Amino acid sequence: MAEEKHVLSILVENQPGVLSRVAGLFSGRGFNIESLCVAVANEPGTSRITLVTKANDALIEQITKQINKIVDVIKVSDLSDEPAVFREMALIKVKTKPEHRAEILRMVDIFRCKVVDISADHYTLELTGDQGKIEAFLDLVRPMGIKEIARTGICSLSREKRQ
Amino acid sequence: MAEEKHVLSILVENQPGVLSRVAGLFSGRGFNIESLCVAVANEPGTSRITLVTKANDALIEQITKQINKIVDVIKVSDLSDEPAVFREMALIKVKTKPEHRAEILRMVDIFRCKVVDISADHYTLELTGDQGKIEAFLDLVRPMGIKEIARTGICSLSREKRQ
Repeated sequence: MAEEKHVLSILVENQPGVLSRVAGLFSGRGFNIESLCVAVANEPGTSRITLVTKANDALIEQITKQINKIVDVIKVSDLSDEPAVFREMALIKVKTKPEHRAEILRMVDIFRCKVVDISADHYTLELTGDQGKIEAFLDLVRPMGIKEIARTGICSLSREKRQ
Repeated sequence: MAEEKHVLSILVENQPGVLSRVAGLFSGRGFNIESLCVAVANEPGTSRITLVTKANDALIEQITKQINKIVDVIKVSDLSDEPAVFREMALIKVKTKPEHRAEILRMVDIFRCKVVDISADHYTLELTGDQGKIEAFLDLVRPMGIKEIARTGICSLSREKRQ
């Protein structure tokens, strides 16, 4: 079976240990987690983990079952199987040689980035969008010099019915 | 010593097991991780973990030392000690009763949210900013009904020198 990208959305009780147990299920099998984000969710005392990994369907099913067995896990959904919104945020610190500044600001405009910090020779940019948009922007500014990147990884919510 | 919020930025080799070991250092001491995000960083084969926790300075120093001992950890910085940019993204699915729609769209405008999905009776909104801005927005829309939230947790980069 082909390995495909899966986005798991996991609602958990906010207890120490849940995150390391979830992450441990992947590393225990030698699986890499491509990205992960976790923060407080809507109900008090709960957090939502959004996790991206590549695996075939059988393995994902197995791992999903094991995640469900963790005491503090409330619900697991594989959002790759259903209509969902996927967005990511990236902070990108680009070098700003004088001859590149106008071009960088043009790209900031086209990609609807925000400039969130300026130093003598760097801009720090905030960009949101799907992974493709973020990769495209990074490819465009890379030749000018990227000093640092901090990306959140994919954050996702299922879509509601249209009618 | 008072417990304070700390934001750790951890550059790691992209190997299975690093994340669960870092998270395990916290849960092993009964510490909660308030938020965490991890995704690929600038150098090929590396990822950046941004982790928020509350602890007193002595404990953070201890944990930072232990994180540094993990083989695949390249660098740990406590960004709460230095000038840094802190941003978070939230996806928020709000209920849209007909009488609330205009008010929600006014707030979307004021907070510079993006509406990223619309269904028969929900809007899904994307909001970025510091934690205070996101909390303020959530407080304002909560009375209208929030169905789900997915937050990335804080993502952070150090500021460069101004001159």
